[in-house]
Amino acid sequence: MKDFYVLHGDILYADEERRIREERDSYLVVRDGKVEEITSRIPASTAVLDYDGCLIIPGLIDLHLHAPQYQFAGLFMDKELLEWLNSHTFPEEGKYADLSYARKAYSIFVSDLVQSETTRFSAFATIHEDASLLLSSMLEESGLSGYVGKVNMDSNSPDYLTEDTEESISSTISFIERMKDFKNVRPIITPRFIPSCSKRLLIELGKISESRHLPVQSHLDENISEIEWVRELVPESRNYADAYRAHGLWGREKTIMAHVVWPSDEEYELLKNSNIYVAHSPSSNSNLSSGIAPVRKMLDSGIKIALATDVAGGSSLSIMRMMTHAVEVSKLYYRYVDSTMRPLTFSEVFYIATRMAGSFFGSVGSFDEGMDADILVLDTSGIHTSIYEELSLSERLELYAYRRAGSPLKAKFVKGRKIL
Amino acid sequence: MKDFYVLHGDILYADEERRIREERDSYLVVRDGKVEEITSRIPASTAVLDYDGCLIIPGLIDLHLHAPQYQFAGLFMDKELLEWLNSHTFPEEGKYADLSYARKAYSIFVSDLVQSETTRFSAFATIHEDASLLLSSMLEESGLSGYVGKVNMDSNSPDYLTEDTEESISSTISFIERMKDFKNVRPIITPRFIPSCSKRLLIELGKISESRHLPVQSHLDENISEIEWVRELVPESRNYADAYRAHGLWGREKTIMAHVVWPSDEEYELLKNSNIYVAHSPSSNSNLSSGIAPVRKMLDSGIKIALATDVAGGSSLSIMRMMTHAVEVSKLYYRYVDSTMRPLTFSEVFYIATRMAGSFFGSVGSFDEGMDADILVLDTSGIHTSIYEELSLSERLELYAYRRAGSPLKAKFVKGRKIL
Repeated sequence: MKDFYVLHGDILYADEERRIREERDSYLVVRDGKVEEITSRIPASTAVLDYDGCLIIPGLIDLHLHAPQYQFAGLFMDKELLEWLNSHTFPEEGKYADLSYARKAYSIFVSDLVQSETTRFSAFATIHEDASLLLSSMLEESGLSGYVGKVNMDSNSPDYLTEDTEESISSTISFIERMKDFKNVRPIITPRFIPSCSKRLLIELGKISESRHLPVQSHLDENISEIEWVRELVPESRNYADAYRAHGLWGREKTIMAHVVWPSDEEYELLKNSNIYVAHSPSSNSNLSSGIAPVRKMLDSGIKIALATDVAGGSSLSIMRMMTHAVEVSKLYYRYVDSTMRPLTFSEVFYIATRMAGSFFGSVGSFDEGMDADILVLDTSGIHTSIYEELSLSERLELYAYRRAGSPLKAKFVKGRKIL
Repeated sequence: MKDFYVLHGDILYADEERRIREERDSYLVVRDGKVEEITSRIPASTAVLDYDGCLIIPGLIDLHLHAPQYQFAGLFMDKELLEWLNSHTFPEEGKYADLSYARKAYSIFVSDLVQSETTRFSAFATIHEDASLLLSSMLEESGLSGYVGKVNMDSNSPDYLTEDTEESISSTISFIERMKDFKNVRPIITPRFIPSCSKRLLIELGKISESRHLPVQSHLDENISEIEWVRELVPESRNYADAYRAHGLWGREKTIMAHVVWPSDEEYELLKNSNIYVAHSPSSNSNLSSGIAPVRKMLDSGIKIALATDVAGGSSLSIMRMMTHAVEVSKLYYRYVDSTMRPLTFSEVFYIATRMAGSFFGSVGSFDEGMDADILVLDTSGIHTSIYEELSLSERLELYAYRRAGSPLKAKFVKGRKIL
């Protein structure tokens, strides 16, 4: 594919004011993997990819998912978090000690992720260095871009998923170094959650993150029983967030905290104006009876939010579905928890899933000049309605999201490379 | 198609104890539009439709949807019920005074409903007799089976959707009589809801239902603002349900009450052991910020439940999606409203969507001998997982429901007729 080309179609993107901007029947100019401009006149002397009638939007971002759990996404949904971890999740993750199983399962995962609306991701692998590197290689080759974490667990876990502390540290360093030539996929420091890591392990992981300038991902305040467990395990910490902070794992580098369903007032303060991105996982939080994250309140507090499938707490790889699901559960939060917190709007979740989450990766998430050319082309032919012609582009996108999320895409580009 | 044939595949159905029964690699024998038996040996001398590896389940039932609203399903989701009715729903329904618009729009609706998992339905049309009859004819021809109601509205509605009371009554009778030769689709008495009907209209509709033995459908306790409005309009009624009962519209014949998100204790008593089916619409109730219906409590009280898309409060025609959505919101109900109400399980929602809802239509909803042969054949080839071979049929069905709800079906039969 050439380094300079143009996509033609109906173009939408989120601006900084969280509005959806619409450019009907326009041309998106891509040069050297970056967005150059959007124009209504066809640029001279270049290749045009004509997606007439299709919607062209920025790639969507999944800031928290567990790659090894994809094989049972959509199963065992009659359980809560801790029971679900022990009965199904940990045994499945244990299988990734076997590299041939990992190859088979990760092939399925990567193939389906390529088909999905996700262009950028941050994924948990397992504790196994080789299998985690294999996953990274497969993702690197796929053309998708994002982070993969070799998971760290040396405490309170089943024997077959418990690492020796020193091995966990050295294996993490080895994993990072073996990825030094990767271009699309980078390592991320990944203590599973507070219960699964000793103090020494947390401290060493914090040092690795700081010395190598690597981002961090973990879990925070997902489920009531989990929070109680953390309180018992680290009684000296003021709260769950403080347990990360005390060990150097709180936003020194860019950090993802998944869920944050039950933040305390003190935790709000720690999240504000920080380097932390909250990965909001509405489907997972419903599936595991965790609750509804207070996204409106966090947004209004200046906390950065991204959307996440949290496969396999979530059963779908579709971030488009998470957009509408985030709107839905925000309405139930408004109804049952706090009627001063108005529901999220469609334009807000579009903004969150693209521009806001994109900033985690640099100049990513919209179509400003110079941003990475991460692009989805949506096939609208499967939408059947008599009023289609009357609709604005934003309305068409909303219609697509509610009716067609997860459907096959027309095309997908990451950093200007067409991968689908 | 012959009157005697056999489907081969992996067969699942709900028994009376709300369990999922599994018959692997078996034969479902259909004769004269009825289920004859399930057998593990191929019956002699008949046609076999081989769906090897597919899941064969009873047709799913959508007990509440608004056919004219399908055109904007998935749009305008940033509003609550009463505002949504006035700004979008009523104007769209007004268009069905024009029969050519109705033909265009209902063609799209019927075509998509045929493609969906729904075999039986109960639908609201609009106030317009001719357009309602047109919808009924199109559904009759499609091979789907169910009820269509010409909607009654003579009060508190926009001018263009307000009928003269006497005309509303006579037009309802005319609609019923013009459908007398229909075989698959039958009329149902359909006062829109208490606010839109005068007392005289409600009383006359009750009489028509009773004298002609016709079922009734309406709305109950959907949204807090709607319930307050009903209280103002009929202060003499003890509650919303009582307003129907006082006018002869409470379960003399089989009756569908959509939503029932906020039943009072007295209303629970009225619903128990009655002829009423509650049409639970989890997506719509989230989308319109209505709330979460207390399905566990109703089930345990012996109240009959069905699932419903409530298009276009719901954005999808997939009842399979409503199954998983019902499980999801029941977990949030458990978390936020009443922790003694354990979440619904997958086998329970399968039972509700098939066997329990099916009883509204007679001997429908499972594969007992003599039941109507309403059958879906699910194509499992789109499910990608390394553990598929290890799974039970119930687990495969759960996986299909969470990952593939709304996907194209392999085949669909209603009363033994193959319609897809």
